[in-house]
Amino acid sequence: MTTTRRTLLTVEEYLAELMTDLLGGTGPIRQTQDVPLAQALGRVLAEPVRAVGDVPAFANSAMDGYAVRHTDLTTLPTSLQVVADVAAGSADDPALEAGQCVRIMTGAPLPSAADTIVPVELTDAGTEVVAINEAPEPGRHVRGAGEDVRAGDVIVPAGTSVTGRVLGSIAAAGTGTVTVRRRPVVAVAATGDELVAPGGSLRRGQIFESNGTHLAATLLELGAEVSRSVVLSDEADAFAADLDELADGADLVLLTGGVSVGAFDVSRIVLERSAQGVFRHVRMQPGKPQGWARWNGVPVLAFPGNPVSTAISFEVFGRPVIDHLLGREQPDGPTTAVAATGWRSPAGRRQFVPVGLTSDETGRLLATPTHRRGSASHMVTSLAGARAVAIVPEDTDEVTAGDLVEIRSL
Amino acid sequence: MTTTRRTLLTVEEYLAELMTDLLGGTGPIRQTQDVPLAQALGRVLAEPVRAVGDVPAFANSAMDGYAVRHTDLTTLPTSLQVVADVAAGSADDPALEAGQCVRIMTGAPLPSAADTIVPVELTDAGTEVVAINEAPEPGRHVRGAGEDVRAGDVIVPAGTSVTGRVLGSIAAAGTGTVTVRRRPVVAVAATGDELVAPGGSLRRGQIFESNGTHLAATLLELGAEVSRSVVLSDEADAFAADLDELADGADLVLLTGGVSVGAFDVSRIVLERSAQGVFRHVRMQPGKPQGWARWNGVPVLAFPGNPVSTAISFEVFGRPVIDHLLGREQPDGPTTAVAATGWRSPAGRRQFVPVGLTSDETGRLLATPTHRRGSASHMVTSLAGARAVAIVPEDTDEVTAGDLVEIRSL
Repeated sequence: MTTTRRTLLTVEEYLAELMTDLLGGTGPIRQTQDVPLAQALGRVLAEPVRAVGDVPAFANSAMDGYAVRHTDLTTLPTSLQVVADVAAGSADDPALEAGQCVRIMTGAPLPSAADTIVPVELTDAGTEVVAINEAPEPGRHVRGAGEDVRAGDVIVPAGTSVTGRVLGSIAAAGTGTVTVRRRPVVAVAATGDELVAPGGSLRRGQIFESNGTHLAATLLELGAEVSRSVVLSDEADAFAADLDELADGADLVLLTGGVSVGAFDVSRIVLERSAQGVFRHVRMQPGKPQGWARWNGVPVLAFPGNPVSTAISFEVFGRPVIDHLLGREQPDGPTTAVAATGWRSPAGRRQFVPVGLTSDETGRLLATPTHRRGSASHMVTSLAGARAVAIVPEDTDEVTAGDLVEIRSL
Repeated sequence: MTTTRRTLLTVEEYLAELMTDLLGGTGPIRQTQDVPLAQALGRVLAEPVRAVGDVPAFANSAMDGYAVRHTDLTTLPTSLQVVADVAAGSADDPALEAGQCVRIMTGAPLPSAADTIVPVELTDAGTEVVAINEAPEPGRHVRGAGEDVRAGDVIVPAGTSVTGRVLGSIAAAGTGTVTVRRRPVVAVAATGDELVAPGGSLRRGQIFESNGTHLAATLLELGAEVSRSVVLSDEADAFAADLDELADGADLVLLTGGVSVGAFDVSRIVLERSAQGVFRHVRMQPGKPQGWARWNGVPVLAFPGNPVSTAISFEVFGRPVIDHLLGREQPDGPTTAVAATGWRSPAGRRQFVPVGLTSDETGRLLATPTHRRGSASHMVTSLAGARAVAIVPEDTDEVTAGDLVEIRSL
């Protein structure tokens, strides 16, 4: 049994090592693609999207009603002659003399000679002559050209993940095609002769493989492309040959399992044998044993095989690497919450705890661990219900209900 | 110009009308599909997923070390004979006599005769004979069978949206295929002769079509299938013919635009003419004019055409309808926040304001409106950056910084 005393690193030190030594020099993926909006969902913008023109492009009516010259409303009630109708989409710009008005629909362009909209509710809704009972303020119910956005304004910055709402904003500002980064191609492999595909049956010593399923789906959610998701043998030569195949054409390989100090930890053994593998103990719980390498030049991240350890390792190290490859900027979001209940935390290690989030009656965000018993490190169901991860610092050995905790949204 | 005084409904009254009169009797979509986990991402579970067996399935070691009989550790330091190795995945159950131990790896099954794991760090790591310097408590570092989950326990309830983390939990509990509801088939149509596809150029009176893009992508995010997303003519007969086609094979049709009291509001005119359309004013802002109908028996929801009105209408009425069709249960989440800044709200109407969410130093969730100027109702960019919608009650005409506000996550 190997008893390697590994270098102990903080989370930040290990992450910095990944960014500098594993990814050093490789910025975001250079290749970009121009895609129509209908195909952009889930992609990451490589360039900012700017408004192609003013929004609104022309002064228009915010109400169904009558476009008037406000000077005609000095005495009330009054009657104005209706000289034209303007519907939404009309290009008309009817002339208006004193005492005249134009019937206008929501969104229709304001006639150049008018300055104010009288909503239909303040009138008798006349079609030849309209009686106006009440006057809005001058300029009321008019949306000015460029009032929302000016031509050239950034609608959505580079690095944004494209959601349905983001697409709505981009379309409204007139852009029909966006430039997104190529999806990073990621190969996923779980190691361990004890792994059985879900749906099979277990004999003594075997467990169901879940890390590949979880990582592959999470990578898709993040906008990556999963080239393969496989289980690798614990036999070193076969493992190395499979790794050659996995790395071929990939931007990143994610391995789970076999990274610890055990005698049969094949990921560590093979990657260290190649003289490129770097294995560390990180001051965190779960997820202490971590490793990385470049295999045929392709970055490889190796996570511990316990499902919760893998999930946390992915959140803490895998996601930042994917975001780096995609050039993704994290949007603002909540970063702290209040512990709804207490729990113990290992001194000297940063603890990551899957939590649910709710509200209290004063608007505070409450974090409740989603595991139900004892240690979180093998609580397979704790992930399904989690909305965030609570982060407990190294110098804390106990969280008490009411304590402020750092959180990271999932 | 029609001046119909429509029935004024509260948000709850209109939503109840949709659920009872529009969807009444049609529960969640009956058809289900059994899909392998790799194809289940984004689907909604029609049935709960239960553990196929105990997790862990057998008592196993939580550490790399030595499986011992704790009675052998009464005097320390001591030496034990190493009689076997057990790796993760091994089916072996080596016998242990007094004074003997088994070298064991993380996850490997605990020999029946052993009761405690001594981590390798507390030993000299011997392979024939091992010197043990320190004794853990009896039973320490052993994960008992069923300690996490018992066979038959519900891992994930019916109605859950399948994420990568949910899939990880399901796989770990041994299920390889899940039963999901058929995706609802939704047709999307924007109305308005003034609409131009993004990427085109505008003449006076025209605007870019964005609602179809936004709704179609948001429906995909929610697990629906979008059969078509089109722009319909403002001409009533052509509109009706197109609606026949859209409704064919759909579970739901979403229309935007043309629902108001204007003379050319084609959605309202055609749906009312069919003697089935119901058009309402709802005490909300934005999104006051709303309509619904059954067209050839297919439910139709008609939203106002302003982009922010459409987005809010979809969140308040469209999403619950989709969730109903999918049988989706909403997970717990934060429901209140503190206004980071003040804003005005229309008396007598419930206001829905897109907001970003951040934290303050006491763990409170802060809501900041994402629009930058004046009224929110035509701020196209306000949606892209929103994480939630703040909901201001009808009896409030002003929100002050520090006020508690209801929120709904997006």
